[in-house]
Amino acid sequence: MTYGLGLLADAGLVMIADTRTNGGVDNVSSYRKLHRLVGDGERDIFAASCGNLSATQAAIALLVEKEEEEEAGERLARPLAEARSMFQAARIAGEALRRANGWVSEALAPARKAGSCLLLGGRIGDAPPRLFLIYEEGNFIECKPDAPFLQIGETKYGRPILDRVVRRDMALPALVKIGLLSFDSAMRSNLSVARPLDLVVVPAAADEAVIEERIGEDDAYFDALSARWSRLLGEGAAAIPDPWFMSPGRHVPAAGSVARLRP
Amino acid sequence: MTYGLGLLADAGLVMIADTRTNGGVDNVSSYRKLHRLVGDGERDIFAASCGNLSATQAAIALLVEKEEEEEAGERLARPLAEARSMFQAARIAGEALRRANGWVSEALAPARKAGSCLLLGGRIGDAPPRLFLIYEEGNFIECKPDAPFLQIGETKYGRPILDRVVRRDMALPALVKIGLLSFDSAMRSNLSVARPLDLVVVPAAADEAVIEERIGEDDAYFDALSARWSRLLGEGAAAIPDPWFMSPGRHVPAAGSVARLRP
Repeated sequence: MTYGLGLLADAGLVMIADTRTNGGVDNVSSYRKLHRLVGDGERDIFAASCGNLSATQAAIALLVEKEEEEEAGERLARPLAEARSMFQAARIAGEALRRANGWVSEALAPARKAGSCLLLGGRIGDAPPRLFLIYEEGNFIECKPDAPFLQIGETKYGRPILDRVVRRDMALPALVKIGLLSFDSAMRSNLSVARPLDLVVVPAAADEAVIEERIGEDDAYFDALSARWSRLLGEGAAAIPDPWFMSPGRHVPAAGSVARLRP
Repeated sequence: MTYGLGLLADAGLVMIADTRTNGGVDNVSSYRKLHRLVGDGERDIFAASCGNLSATQAAIALLVEKEEEEEAGERLARPLAEARSMFQAARIAGEALRRANGWVSEALAPARKAGSCLLLGGRIGDAPPRLFLIYEEGNFIECKPDAPFLQIGETKYGRPILDRVVRRDMALPALVKIGLLSFDSAMRSNLSVARPLDLVVVPAAADEAVIEERIGEDDAYFDALSARWSRLLGEGAAAIPDPWFMSPGRHVPAAGSVARLRP
């Protein structure tokens, strides 16, 4: 399993992915799943992948390795490095993903399908960053202001914090923190999501540099963030008043009877 | 979908279930899924169910309606009302669930299986409360101190708060609050989990009364709890220091370049 997250606010784009892959709990490895596809001064395009590793690696190779594309004998409609908009980049990536999933699904049939998907995000020229979720068939949806994030893979554990806290007007450092907290939740509840985490920050301002980071397995900042968050959740829950039906003195000692204590 | 949760601490047992059932988003109803199976002064036994509603209703009927059991022509090994321990109660409930799932799965075959499961909890005599998760085949596991909760149904959204905060030595009001917060997370992220919530509190002390409550759709306490929790998560995230790589002044303005800012 994998968890991949893209957060898109007015201030810019944050993408985070873990690195754990597994073919069962006795076959666990660490692979980079957040990839820089293009970085030529004009374009900064990144993809986070989930699903069958051979399919996602094939899709990425189609997009970034010219030889690979030619060997496959099926040139993509246009090289990613010539995309004139992020929408066009998403179409090209969708085409590559559909083909790669097709090859792998054919090999795996009829037992299973490759089922890989991508988060594609980045900026081209002076246009603001955009973010897309590309499904295994190659079709895609774009992240829009009403729901300023997209997720792939093991999405549920890390979602409550996003649903409650992410806002379009957040600054980039806040967005990064929320993203890391979302990963912390997923990692605590699912062994198949794990550090190192790869992270990229693409500011909306075209003259601000892209930031790429790896959060290691023993990263002290992340450890502190996780510990502090646990403490805060415990303290926060304790600060909420007790439910009316649990107030002291309202426990009626009457073995086996049912107390309906609401006024 | 459904979400059912049992929390077992030294102070006692808390069980919570929502009431939403659906056969698609255009066919949504509200059904009680937390049932009192026995309450005879000696035994307080409750079950929360998930999965196919016809199968869970059949299982509950087998356990509580004498006529139903006889009509089925298959008497359970022992009536639930005569169980001498919660372990025995779990075996009896497992038997009922296996049969009910069998009937419904046969009717639905080959398209799908009933797949209903139960949380069974309660106390008998002076023994402390116990909690079991009964799988569709009738086998079951018991909640033990290392992991003081069990979940059924839509479990993932509501799990992070449990993994971080629940402790075996918590008082019952705190346990109830954590349970409600877990439901709040599930309800915000999944439409198919919804109020009213049914809740039962079984204190470990045999001379303290069982509390049964329903939290309605417009319950003011729950609304306040949810709003306060959202505010708290936002404030808590804001209070965590920014990541080292997002510190002000470390953004190097260099369009398209990659800044590796870690010292």
